[in-house]
Amino acid sequence: MAKVKKQPRPKAEPPKGFRDYFGPEVTQRKAMLEQIAKVYHLYGFEALESSAVETVEALGKFLPDVDRPNEGVFAWQEDEADWLALRYDLTAPLARVYAQHRNDLPTPYRRYAMGPVWRDEKPGPGRFRQFYQCDADTVGAASVAADAEICSMLSDTLEAVGIPRGDYICRVNNRKVLNGVMEVAGVLDPADPGRLSHERGIVLRAIDKLDRLGFDGVRALLGEGRKDESGDFTKGAGLSAEQADTVMAFMEAKRSDGPATVARLRELVGASETGKQGVQELETIAELMDAQGYGADRIEVDPSVVRGLGYYTGPVFEAELTFEIHDEKGRPRQFGSVAGGGRYDDLVKRFTGQAVPATGISIGVDRLLAALHAKGRLHAEVRGPVVVTVMDRDRMAAYQSMVGELRAAGIRAEVYLGNPKNFGNQLKYADKRRSPVAIIEGSDEAARGVLQIKDLVLGAKIAETATHEEWKDQPAQREVARGDLVAEVRKILAGEA
Amino acid sequence: MAKVKKQPRPKAEPPKGFRDYFGPEVTQRKAMLEQIAKVYHLYGFEALESSAVETVEALGKFLPDVDRPNEGVFAWQEDEADWLALRYDLTAPLARVYAQHRNDLPTPYRRYAMGPVWRDEKPGPGRFRQFYQCDADTVGAASVAADAEICSMLSDTLEAVGIPRGDYICRVNNRKVLNGVMEVAGVLDPADPGRLSHERGIVLRAIDKLDRLGFDGVRALLGEGRKDESGDFTKGAGLSAEQADTVMAFMEAKRSDGPATVARLRELVGASETGKQGVQELETIAELMDAQGYGADRIEVDPSVVRGLGYYTGPVFEAELTFEIHDEKGRPRQFGSVAGGGRYDDLVKRFTGQAVPATGISIGVDRLLAALHAKGRLHAEVRGPVVVTVMDRDRMAAYQSMVGELRAAGIRAEVYLGNPKNFGNQLKYADKRRSPVAIIEGSDEAARGVLQIKDLVLGAKIAETATHEEWKDQPAQREVARGDLVAEVRKILAGEA
Repeated sequence: MAKVKKQPRPKAEPPKGFRDYFGPEVTQRKAMLEQIAKVYHLYGFEALESSAVETVEALGKFLPDVDRPNEGVFAWQEDEADWLALRYDLTAPLARVYAQHRNDLPTPYRRYAMGPVWRDEKPGPGRFRQFYQCDADTVGAASVAADAEICSMLSDTLEAVGIPRGDYICRVNNRKVLNGVMEVAGVLDPADPGRLSHERGIVLRAIDKLDRLGFDGVRALLGEGRKDESGDFTKGAGLSAEQADTVMAFMEAKRSDGPATVARLRELVGASETGKQGVQELETIAELMDAQGYGADRIEVDPSVVRGLGYYTGPVFEAELTFEIHDEKGRPRQFGSVAGGGRYDDLVKRFTGQAVPATGISIGVDRLLAALHAKGRLHAEVRGPVVVTVMDRDRMAAYQSMVGELRAAGIRAEVYLGNPKNFGNQLKYADKRRSPVAIIEGSDEAARGVLQIKDLVLGAKIAETATHEEWKDQPAQREVARGDLVAEVRKILAGEA
Repeated sequence: MAKVKKQPRPKAEPPKGFRDYFGPEVTQRKAMLEQIAKVYHLYGFEALESSAVETVEALGKFLPDVDRPNEGVFAWQEDEADWLALRYDLTAPLARVYAQHRNDLPTPYRRYAMGPVWRDEKPGPGRFRQFYQCDADTVGAASVAADAEICSMLSDTLEAVGIPRGDYICRVNNRKVLNGVMEVAGVLDPADPGRLSHERGIVLRAIDKLDRLGFDGVRALLGEGRKDESGDFTKGAGLSAEQADTVMAFMEAKRSDGPATVARLRELVGASETGKQGVQELETIAELMDAQGYGADRIEVDPSVVRGLGYYTGPVFEAELTFEIHDEKGRPRQFGSVAGGGRYDDLVKRFTGQAVPATGISIGVDRLLAALHAKGRLHAEVRGPVVVTVMDRDRMAAYQSMVGELRAAGIRAEVYLGNPKNFGNQLKYADKRRSPVAIIEGSDEAARGVLQIKDLVLGAKIAETATHEEWKDQPAQREVARGDLVAEVRKILAGEA
């Protein structure tokens, strides 16, 4: 019999495009989710957690930047039955949940949700296939007051997580205005909305790429197409020069203030009923925001915002951080968008056949964290636990009692549980954990009822600056009575804080 | 051309075995995870969050109750390349993370993790395919002091989340003792550990099912096999009567106290070196626990605990809730296990070739929540937001200003955003949201600079008990000055709390 081939060792790495988060990365994200949830809750939204897995048919095909069906999601088939997939956002699951539970839920249903979403996309630097979103949506409210509220809440939320006013801007636009412009350009016929929908999809995605491609790049995609730096050609929407001019005029319609922009948009949509309705909605939102004191320093009408997702039907929102950061190579760049959303009145209808108006926002929590990190505004918890070292293996129970006392006093503490043979390794461990204090008790100390307490923060400072003689005095290490353990450790921690 | 067939509507339901969590279900779980993390952190553990997706090869095949390869996990193949899968626990990913980052991590590495895990199992009542775990593990510590610490931390954690002493018990056992007994029974040959490993797997899983099958059921599975109620036959390990007796004696080795149980186990393992080592480890753990004051009311040695997972190599732990609850049909039953863990010294070795000792615990958060719920110990947040009703659509900005003031004062509030036509619907909405207060301001009130404040909690009480005449006086509704909005709402909320 042939020998069984030995299995090769598995590779110790996550799948491509996935990563691990350690210590403060986890707790900082948790804290941010908590802060966002607090604002959402204050606004009357209720928590919802749907499962990570949905049927492919429930998710539908609404991903941006995706032209091929099924691309973009991680999907698999269950025993020749349903296809299942990981959710790619929190909006599609909400539509499913609302359709399912609509008779039991209040209307309007205001819910917030937070958690990872997954995209089967080509990973890139800083671009991962699992990332966190934190959403709030109002389902069952047709009023633009619901959209306006989402905008003010977005603004409040950004300030709550530590982005000061002036460092962000919430932009508002309306898909109906774009559709009005498309009517004027002859790319949308209200009597036959299915015609040219493929071309309109290309227009939408082209506009959404404005910050990456610039006006010339977008213009090329409105026409025949565009060759990128690598030489790859992307087919365009095939609009005539005149048609493309009309669309470009829409993108460049932003004026010095909201009313002027709205006036310009009113010109552009001409006689289109949809377009006029969109402009009217934008105007109402702007008025509501103004009345509540959310001025142009926080929220502005910006026709270049369209959002890539196919399901938006009215107002669309985007929050952008306006400060500069430096990339890995030290080059300054704008941080860009950290949140986006809009009104999607047809998502629930897919399930029920009845139109249900809905609007909401999704905050890209990981991008927001990266922004705060880049600005030096995240202070990692650096203090590790108090480490009780092991001088004498047989006294393990005594060491465990010490950490028990410290923990009972609310002080983070642990016994060194590695191989205690080499005492230097124990101190190196405490150093790596950024421990503020090490406790040392050998049999000599035990017999005398005392402990050595080592102030590791002070010790590190002395080690940096002291002469050899001063170092030998070891003022960072003191002998204290065993009974004073908690009090003495507390003193050091207080002095350090 | 044939007409394109209309797509049927997608079903508005999650995949089989998945469910949605609403409002308090989400926030209560979050609060529990927070409480558990606090204890883990106090013990010196650091947060880690790995991705939900791993390569199938990194996860390995260690699931309990799984005899067929690949069963038990949700897996899919990436473009004819790697097979990916959703993690089935938090331990396998930890082994991968430690193997990958071991040169940068402190040793021992103490980490906690929390999040959903996924099992592709047949769903049943209360048995879901996505559920939360909250784990703590120490990697790189060979000492049984690390195992003992896990036990005391488990006990502290259960009390921290609201399970009082006496309502739970942490049981400890050791796989080495079981292996010693298997040696004695002739089912394990230390010189040829591969032989009869399949049979030992059946023995292990049989013992793990003790609470479901009883002693007779386990005994049947040790021998030829067992026919269940449905008539299905499960093949047994094929042990002789004498061999089975030896194993059964192990399961029934529990005596009135720890030392007596340890003494009985020492008899059972006879001359087996592995068995004697296991008994010694159990004894050391029991001594350490005792020295720290964790008595038999919290932690006990119980030979019937083996845990189903294949990867445990030494001490194993289980926490069981000891109180009775009533099932859906009102029958009393024991709640059972809510946490389990143990030592797994070979998981990291799969990746690196070097043995790395590790031990840890996993708390089944959803089961723990269900237990607290069954005992009536979870108090859901029942208070909804203050609802500002809409009497006059044109005054939307004014209503938004009211909620703005309330929110600025930290009071949860919202404007009714549904169709305001039917005022009764607005109050029904406030009722469904469990709102404590509704604000009413029509054009008449606006002209006079006043508001109507409706105390909905008081109103509901009056509605239950009052006569028609009393009801007509409406003492639960008062007129207040517009400027007193926040102060008056605060009064009602304070009175209610």
